[in-house]
Amino acid sequence: MSLHKLIQELRENNGSKIVLLVADGLGGLPMDPGGKTELESAHTPNLDDLVRDGVCGLSTPVLPGIAPGSGPGHLALFGYDPLEWRIGRGILEALGINFPVGPNDVAIRGNFCTVDASGKITDRRAGRPSTEKCIEVCAKLKSIKIPGAEIFVEPVKEHRFVLVIRAEGLGDAVNDTDPQAVGVKPLVAKGADAPSQKTADLANAFLAQAAKLLAGEQGINMATLRGFAKNPAIPTFKDIYGLNALALAVYPMYRGLARLVNMEIGDAGSTLDDQVEALTKAWNDYDFFFLHFKYTDSTGEDGNFPGKVEMIEKLDGAIPKIRALKPDVFLVTGDHSTPSKLKSHSWHPVPTILQASTCRTDRVHEFGESQCLAGGLGQFEAKYLMSMAMAHAGRLGKYGA
Amino acid sequence: MSLHKLIQELRENNGSKIVLLVADGLGGLPMDPGGKTELESAHTPNLDDLVRDGVCGLSTPVLPGIAPGSGPGHLALFGYDPLEWRIGRGILEALGINFPVGPNDVAIRGNFCTVDASGKITDRRAGRPSTEKCIEVCAKLKSIKIPGAEIFVEPVKEHRFVLVIRAEGLGDAVNDTDPQAVGVKPLVAKGADAPSQKTADLANAFLAQAAKLLAGEQGINMATLRGFAKNPAIPTFKDIYGLNALALAVYPMYRGLARLVNMEIGDAGSTLDDQVEALTKAWNDYDFFFLHFKYTDSTGEDGNFPGKVEMIEKLDGAIPKIRALKPDVFLVTGDHSTPSKLKSHSWHPVPTILQASTCRTDRVHEFGESQCLAGGLGQFEAKYLMSMAMAHAGRLGKYGA
Repeated sequence: MSLHKLIQELRENNGSKIVLLVADGLGGLPMDPGGKTELESAHTPNLDDLVRDGVCGLSTPVLPGIAPGSGPGHLALFGYDPLEWRIGRGILEALGINFPVGPNDVAIRGNFCTVDASGKITDRRAGRPSTEKCIEVCAKLKSIKIPGAEIFVEPVKEHRFVLVIRAEGLGDAVNDTDPQAVGVKPLVAKGADAPSQKTADLANAFLAQAAKLLAGEQGINMATLRGFAKNPAIPTFKDIYGLNALALAVYPMYRGLARLVNMEIGDAGSTLDDQVEALTKAWNDYDFFFLHFKYTDSTGEDGNFPGKVEMIEKLDGAIPKIRALKPDVFLVTGDHSTPSKLKSHSWHPVPTILQASTCRTDRVHEFGESQCLAGGLGQFEAKYLMSMAMAHAGRLGKYGA
Repeated sequence: MSLHKLIQELRENNGSKIVLLVADGLGGLPMDPGGKTELESAHTPNLDDLVRDGVCGLSTPVLPGIAPGSGPGHLALFGYDPLEWRIGRGILEALGINFPVGPNDVAIRGNFCTVDASGKITDRRAGRPSTEKCIEVCAKLKSIKIPGAEIFVEPVKEHRFVLVIRAEGLGDAVNDTDPQAVGVKPLVAKGADAPSQKTADLANAFLAQAAKLLAGEQGINMATLRGFAKNPAIPTFKDIYGLNALALAVYPMYRGLARLVNMEIGDAGSTLDDQVEALTKAWNDYDFFFLHFKYTDSTGEDGNFPGKVEMIEKLDGAIPKIRALKPDVFLVTGDHSTPSKLKSHSWHPVPTILQASTCRTDRVHEFGESQCLAGGLGQFEAKYLMSMAMAHAGRLGKYGA
């Protein structure tokens, strides 16, 4: 039996409330062996209190050694096996710009490029145009009409855009048209099966019209397509847990990930304070709250160790206001580690706190990677965090008699 | 390859002996955060000695967050994946009264109820009759004969009884006839396939005759049926491990669970001392001994923290006599946690000791939940305890060359 079926079978509704606070890329590394990580360096009296009142551990987002992107990292925290539920690049790109991908849509990541007179690619990124230029070209391409389908062209950033093809019966087993090389022509889209060939035909028709519209332009005069993807037929958060969930995320990508599992999307404002205020206002209307804090990741990606420390301390400052709401279960974790030392997402396990009145408290008194090693949650797969949260919230009945 | 196939392939017989002592519901919680659990509060010099001579850890019976019933909890300890092998309610009920369910049997839990003149249920539990009354009514229903099947009606307690239908080719995909409501008639049993329809027809015939026999009675004048279940086609303990196993359990449910995997059932008397005496007498005749101690669970279910502490100390008193027999592997664990604070089974990991001369001893010196966090077994799935026991007993060869 799958974990989701088991939870569906055992779940109960008791009006309890769960808060999941995700500090993106929370886990880190010391800059030198034996030193302290960003989290261990930060002054975090409120997170330390939370650890003392709860139980902590280290979560593995996917598998040991696997560094996840934001998609798999969050799906795991939402309780979905990130190896079972894969989200195509086109879908992630569409989520990132808040495009509402529907069941008849294939989403595709587009790259503007430059081709020579013979159609061979000379620059795969069209000289990295400005985002303004990207918006301008997309506006032009929005005029493209293809019989039997709706076409959406949305700018992302610089040379990147999203193409969404909407029609009944489309497949997404279509190759990338980006040949990943210069001096050659873009590839023709081909479908691996009949529904995917339908998509490929529409994509090729789009590219032909785009080529005509952009002919003679300097810089952007052609496009390549990658990551054809339909929305995964993923069960909703409500289907699995019976929870009315509200997502409060400042960045569109994370609102998109929440929308993917059909959480409701609240107006999160633009700061952590705004998010906590929105949480407070919505407190009586939902069972589950997902709050996303981006800056622990972005400072890590920048290799800015003191900046990440500062962002962790900022996060710490928000904890008392959330605790004042008295959630039955309060989870603080990350979707992956982003050590400043590596300037990238990493595979290192993620420090995690679960606080509830039913915790078997451990002896950990400070929130940090080393300390969490001795925590009662041990080292666990992130996909089990939600089942533990449901149990501590009193929302899971007994399995078997 | 499945774990069972692997063990079958690698197993060897060397005459070594394994004792599995299950303290039901052993794991607990502190009443207040930071306090001690029942086990940590108990004075357990003998278990502490065992920990020092062995290795300890925390076992997860099913999955993180999942609180198991006794069935899944014990199957996991016997080395069966509790999500793969599910035991229906009817079977568990039959096991609980020590009814020997055979391969042609469908076991069903029955509830006596009260219906009005139109056949609508007015009391789903027939006013909770005495067990004497239940026995009396079951005796009356034993007279029911149905062509083509054998029928067994056995009392359980108050309004509960077990119905077993025995015939060739019966299925168990049959709905409950209990509508879970008053003011409506019991449902008709229907089978989801032909073999199950055969069962449903026999069940409906039984109910019709029961209604006639009980017509005009006050209180119990009808019955509903739930949890139609056949014995799972579970491989025997001997098949998997090649062990001659003896179960010594005072309570019928646990003898039933041992019988389910075809252990031999010994006369366990009525106390832990009786069980240890029976163990001593049977020592030369078996390879594996399952001893079940109930009272750590029942005191926990009662919310009786000091009572549970006392029962743990009682258990501790039995340890030296068992060690005197010099088992090659001595396991002490629980099938799940039953914290007095929660008065119910819970999902919290279960403290576990494995003692053998081949242990890589850890630095834990006392038996307790916090201490086990630092144990050499780490946090592990209960279904792996038996493979570890087999290894430490010298009963598993090398996998691969």
